[in-house]
Order: sequence, then structure tokens, then C-alpha cells
Amino acid sequence: MHIDILTLFPQMFEGVLNHSIMKRAQDMNAFSYQTIDFREYTENKHNKVDDYPYGGGAGMVLSPQPVFDAVEKGTAPSEEKPPRIILMCPQGEPYTQAKAEELAQEDHLIFICGHYEGYDERIRTHLATDEISIGDYVLTGGELGTMVVMDSVIRLLPGVLGNEASAPEDSFSKGLLEHPHYTRPREFRGVEVPEVLLSGNHAHIDEWRHQQSLKRTYERRKDLLTEYELSPKEKQWIDSIEKNE
Amino acid sequence: MHIDILTLFPQMFEGVLNHSIMKRAQDMNAFSYQTIDFREYTENKHNKVDDYPYGGGAGMVLSPQPVFDAVEKGTAPSEEKPPRIILMCPQGEPYTQAKAEELAQEDHLIFICGHYEGYDERIRTHLATDEISIGDYVLTGGELGTMVVMDSVIRLLPGVLGNEASAPEDSFSKGLLEHPHYTRPREFRGVEVPEVLLSGNHAHIDEWRHQQSLKRTYERRKDLLTEYELSPKEKQWIDSIEKNE
Repeated sequence: MHIDILTLFPQMFEGVLNHSIMKRAQDMNAFSYQTIDFREYTENKHNKVDDYPYGGGAGMVLSPQPVFDAVEKGTAPSEEKPPRIILMCPQGEPYTQAKAEELAQEDHLIFICGHYEGYDERIRTHLATDEISIGDYVLTGGELGTMVVMDSVIRLLPGVLGNEASAPEDSFSKGLLEHPHYTRPREFRGVEVPEVLLSGNHAHIDEWRHQQSLKRTYERRKDLLTEYELSPKEKQWIDSIEKNE
Repeated sequence: MHIDILTLFPQMFEGVLNHSIMKRAQDMNAFSYQTIDFREYTENKHNKVDDYPYGGGAGMVLSPQPVFDAVEKGTAPSEEKPPRIILMCPQGEPYTQAKAEELAQEDHLIFICGHYEGYDERIRTHLATDEISIGDYVLTGGELGTMVVMDSVIRLLPGVLGNEASAPEDSFSKGLLEHPHYTRPREFRGVEVPEVLLSGNHAHIDEWRHQQSLKRTYERRKDLLTEYELSPKEKQWIDSIEKNE
């Protein structure tokens, strides 16, 4: 996979993309990336990338010309499939694990990181193929959102996670929050590890974990259960949680 | 505001925290931060921070001792209010703009960035005051989530945004997605700026923007409207959108 990142702050990416899993993924050629400072593509003499909004109002708006030109002239050539051109913005589609899995199938992603008050609407309607929001909160620019999407996609690329077994068991992949984890010591500051985890009985352990996972989802994120198909056993567990409330 | 960040990858933060608005906010003393590599607080001779899960299973679990000790011995002393100790994890409370506004009132935040399969449950139950998830997708660690929360909080601190008028008008602050923005040129690649924005009639412009904002929210994020109190005029607009569908 190749990733082009249009940004006015290329240095923001270095620390994040060159450590931990993202570093390892590059070392094993799972992906490559380049940052493109779209200020270099402006045609006006002051290298301005933004301008006043038509109709007035506070803040500056990102001009279409440098962004269109940077995508068309600065990004890597695509091979067979055309690239996905992703606009990071609060008005975008809420990002989910399903979208991460979809993007992990692509060969070429282009991210556009906005700043200032917003994008000229023509970037949205005539250039982008996708608009993504990582959540309902306001950030100063699209850079952190791009890093979040990249991280979630790259860890799904073949071979990137050393322990392949880990990926599908994570929260959201199966629709429930994860069960609690415990490690040594058995007692820490007076708090003990639940007995069942020390029992060696794997059927009991699996059942306890499954129950805890459902309980945690019920208590913290009932909204996730509307999309989740409960088995008869899971329905029983929920009933008994509700009775004990 | 002071922020302590417990992480095994301190270098991930440098690019993000030392550019753009976060750099400016530090230069004006709106906040200070330090990263704490909690590996330095391990008491075992191999400096391990993780261990096998009780009960078996894939992946490693973050041990309680180095995390508790790093919080207690490594973080800055708090002044009047005790610090908020925030665990970044997929099981946490979904992060929102309201939470950003709440955290922006604090003097001292401590973030704990996990890695590996998960945290020992005692970190969750006996150390953290808050658990936050930035969205329903899986990331390789808590670092990016911490940067997202920091960015959204720091931009709300007094004086950080140069143009103070910008903050409250952003998406989510008022419960609707933002209206489209346009800037020069008036025609770009055959696509024209809507006539009303060139009219100079500010009442019309305000009404058009308000209508577009509502329309975009209705089309893309109906879920946001369940929390939003529609005025009689807004109800009319929605009715006419529904009739045209």
C-alpha cells in the first residue's frame, strides 16, 4: 500500500510514523508514504493556501487550487485501482472498524488534512472520494485524524501484527467490548485476580470471559448491542444482569 | 494546565506536540507536558512492563506495578485539585466535545497509554479516574488517542486559538454539522459559488447557512438530531427536505 498525505505540517507525522508498529510495517514493506506540503502548489505569489469566505464570517477557508493541483501533480501514480482520496473533516462519515477493514484492501490512499475554518466545498464535491470523521469532537487540523486512520488500517495489513491471533479478538472486531485482563502478581495492593482465571479449567475461563465481555458492553455501551445478535445463552445472561440491577 | 503522559514511546509525541497550535499553546504557557517512560519504573530485573495473561490466551497484558509507580513517583505534584488519571482504551467512555470542554477546566491531566493486548484490570479499577475511547476502531496503542484528546482540550484553553470567534462555531459545539464554505475563485473548474453568498444580503446568507447546516446533518448524521432541539422554523425545513426525497 502507498499513502500520500497532503498537509501543511509534514513534521507532525515523523514521530508517529517512525516508531512502534508503523515503523515495523515500513521496514517490512507493508506500506510506504510521502507527505506533500500543498503550499508548494499554490499559484499565487504569496504562497497562500487559504482565503476569506464568500458571504463573510470568521476564519479562513482552504482554497481549491493548491489542493487539486497537489493531488493531481504531487501524488504517486496509481497502479490498477484508482486511489481513494480521503478528506478528514468533522462532517465526514463516522469512522469505524468496518471502514478500516475496507480501506485495508486498497492499494493507494491519499489523505487531505485541512486546517483553518474549513475546506472550499468544491474540494469536497469534486475531488474527494471519501470524507471521514474520527469522532464527534473538534481538532485543530486533519493530521491527527489521518494518523489514527493510518494506524488502524496498517495494523490490519498482512504480517504487520507479529501475533496474528491478536487482531480479530480485539474490541469491536466481534461487536462486544473486551473482557478484563489480569497478569501477575496474583495479589496487587490487596486486590486479587479472580479465582476462575487460576482454575486451569479452560471451558470455565472462556465462559467467564464471554460473560464479562457481554456485561461490560451492556453496562458501558448498550448502543453496541443494537447491532449485535444475541445467542439464547447471551440473552439469559442479560436477563440475569437486569434482575440484579 | 500540566499534562503527564505515561508511554513506552515518548518520541511519538514530539512531532505532534511541537508544531502548529500545540506549539503556540506551549510558547504562550497555556500548558506544559512531560512524557514518562514507565519502563523506567519496573522493579523486575529485565525491565519488563508486560506479562502473560492469567487464564491463558493470545497477547501480553500490561503489569500494574510499573504503571502505579510511574503515576505515583513520576508525575508532577498537583496543586489544589487532584489530577484526572485518564486511561486510553477501547472499552472507555466514547469521547465527545462535551468531555473536551470538561477536561479543559482541569489543572492537571495524566494520560496512560497502553500497548499490547490490554491493561491489568487493577489499573482500570484502582488507579484511573477516567477511561476514554476516541472511537469504535482498534489502534495499536493509546498514544494517538492521547494526542487527539490533548489537541481537542488545548485548543479550548483561554487565548490559544488566535481567532477566538472560531471555537464555538465549529461542528458539534452547537449540535449540527457545519454549513459549506466557499472562497475564491468564484468559478473553479466550471463549478460556481452559490449566488446567495455573493449577494451581500447578510440575513439571507445566515439563513442559507443555517439551512445547509441542518440539511447536511439530516442527510449525514440523523443521529445528532435526536439530541438537538428543533425550532419551529427548523422543523419546517426538515419537512420540506423530507417531501423532496
